[in-house]
Amino acid sequence: MSLPNEQIVTPWEVSCNEETGVDYKKIINHFGCSPIEQNLLEEIKKQTNSELHELLRRKLVFAHRDFDKIISKKFYIYTGRGPSSESMHLGHAIPFVFTKYLQETFNAPLVIQMTDDEKFLFTKKSFEEIRKFTFENIKDILAFNFSKKTFIFSNFDYSHKFEENTLKIAKSISLNEAEKVFGFNGNSNIGQVFFPAKEIAPCFSSSFKFIKDFKHCLVPAAIDQDPYFRLARDKAPILKENKPSTIYSKFMPSLKGIGKKMSASDQFSAVFLTDTSEEIKQKITKHAFSGGKQTLKEHRKEGGNTQVDIPFIYLNYLLKDDQMLFSIKNAYENGEMLSSEMKNLCVKEVQKFVLDYQISRKEVNDDVVERFMSEREF
Amino acid sequence: MSLPNEQIVTPWEVSCNEETGVDYKKIINHFGCSPIEQNLLEEIKKQTNSELHELLRRKLVFAHRDFDKIISKKFYIYTGRGPSSESMHLGHAIPFVFTKYLQETFNAPLVIQMTDDEKFLFTKKSFEEIRKFTFENIKDILAFNFSKKTFIFSNFDYSHKFEENTLKIAKSISLNEAEKVFGFNGNSNIGQVFFPAKEIAPCFSSSFKFIKDFKHCLVPAAIDQDPYFRLARDKAPILKENKPSTIYSKFMPSLKGIGKKMSASDQFSAVFLTDTSEEIKQKITKHAFSGGKQTLKEHRKEGGNTQVDIPFIYLNYLLKDDQMLFSIKNAYENGEMLSSEMKNLCVKEVQKFVLDYQISRKEVNDDVVERFMSEREF
Repeated sequence: MSLPNEQIVTPWEVSCNEETGVDYKKIINHFGCSPIEQNLLEEIKKQTNSELHELLRRKLVFAHRDFDKIISKKFYIYTGRGPSSESMHLGHAIPFVFTKYLQETFNAPLVIQMTDDEKFLFTKKSFEEIRKFTFENIKDILAFNFSKKTFIFSNFDYSHKFEENTLKIAKSISLNEAEKVFGFNGNSNIGQVFFPAKEIAPCFSSSFKFIKDFKHCLVPAAIDQDPYFRLARDKAPILKENKPSTIYSKFMPSLKGIGKKMSASDQFSAVFLTDTSEEIKQKITKHAFSGGKQTLKEHRKEGGNTQVDIPFIYLNYLLKDDQMLFSIKNAYENGEMLSSEMKNLCVKEVQKFVLDYQISRKEVNDDVVERFMSEREF
Repeated sequence: MSLPNEQIVTPWEVSCNEETGVDYKKIINHFGCSPIEQNLLEEIKKQTNSELHELLRRKLVFAHRDFDKIISKKFYIYTGRGPSSESMHLGHAIPFVFTKYLQETFNAPLVIQMTDDEKFLFTKKSFEEIRKFTFENIKDILAFNFSKKTFIFSNFDYSHKFEENTLKIAKSISLNEAEKVFGFNGNSNIGQVFFPAKEIAPCFSSSFKFIKDFKHCLVPAAIDQDPYFRLARDKAPILKENKPSTIYSKFMPSLKGIGKKMSASDQFSAVFLTDTSEEIKQKITKHAFSGGKQTLKEHRKEGGNTQVDIPFIYLNYLLKDDQMLFSIKNAYENGEMLSSEMKNLCVKEVQKFVLDYQISRKEVNDDVVERFMSEREF
């Protein structure tokens, strides 16, 4: 689905103006979802009886479909991941950090779909490779410390359990519709064309017999996944199911700049969750795009640009303390703080995040995986 | 796929000239399969060390793809059925009669796919209805007394076991290709478009881990299923599998005439395997299209036309004794035998076939079903 001015956002492609980055207002208008506004934030605070997550406070989670309609009801959370490489990067981590917050504050069951079948159908990778990625990625995901009410499954191994719903959904989607929503064409393979039915099925509570009392579904996802859930909502009445609600995050940009997306295949585009502290330092120091000025004199005089400064943008994602973030922003913009200082702050915060994660990741052994992959009553 | 002169033969539609019936030569030319010729018949006799089946002798099984190439090798047999109504008719029975002959004479393992998913995707029927049909149809099929080396499965319940092959096949078929081969269009649903991968997968021995020593596959089917197996053969090299061989039967025509096809939804188009002897008598006597002449005088003088006479055509399918069939043909064509006499002979033969079948059908209880649906080493 192409947006005006050459911005393209689909589940398989995100491209935008390299200098100004993604225009999220345009996406909201084009997809037809709603921005998260103050009254919804207040309602979240009220329902969770706690402070808003920084991703919400900073509008990095910025859009939704009907979250307000289910916020006071019993809902389960559905999210997923396409296993794409042996290790996940920071951009992959953010949606899971937010999902964990949702699960904790709403005390909601969580199902996580590993779309290994999608990866097989949309890449040149072999089954064997993808199964390896899947297994590792499941451990990577479980390292975010989800509660016991979490079920993680791979489509290869588990999706036949909700095959009835998948087929009902597939029966309701015409080729014309799939081509329009997802941009399939004559060169798409027939597996790709069928796949959306599999990503949609877990939006409906009847797909999981063990989730008994939670009849509504909330999908936290990156905004590029909206076409699936828009379609899921269209089809819900046919299946006599509740429409899923959604809540969408922005894309954490590449180290290389706000107009680029992190890529698992480009080591210097992202910080990986397997990087050492030294690697993180090198990557951010050497490769992070800076919003600072060319010369010290110029910087002191004019200040840095936090809109495009990747180290600051990463701090905006990771630093919990609003006051500190605000001070940093001010100091940078008025030239008191230098690029190198900003980078150092970012390095420390990213190192801390990754190290905490790595400690947690070590705890995830095969037994943990087995437990979270087994069906249990929620 | 439309053939010249408005003859249409696809897995979902068969129509032809109502007076002359299906032109099988045209189908062979159009699909590109081979007629079964004398040298192949001789080879079958030699390999099976027994008489040819009457369906082969009478060219009612008439075409193939590379059966000669695997006839002396170890092959398993793969066939299937789309569960379409609560009881099967005579036209459904013939391919299973022939399959049983193949299994017996070649001592081959047999797998039978119930395409309940296809029926769901291509009709307006509900899951519940189709599951009921499937269960009954499995019993109907097992009443043909297949050997212990037979595995019958429903796609809903079992096809995930060969999902890896299904996805590999799906990945290899473009939408363009599927539209060309099967005639899908923008109004087709995405489940229909994906389905061919599921019918193709059992053509490859790796789909069934328990069939160890039989690396080749023979598919007996009605000729309208050829598009699936043509595509299966095209894709075999990509999957590093052997190309399946096929052997095709003609369509047993409707009671109403050679240009019409039996329909499960039209009681008077077919003899059903659940019909009583009295019903069979009524149907054939009253509804079978006759090749006899209008008046007794005319008939005695000019004789009947066995080319269009449904009672004779049914005898051609069912009567084992060639000499008797030849005498009947002669007597009818030279006017000695009347339409009513031909109908009586047909009634008796069909009654006998159906009664034998019904006796066998009574023996098929839930235990038998369970046994044939369980994976066993062959």
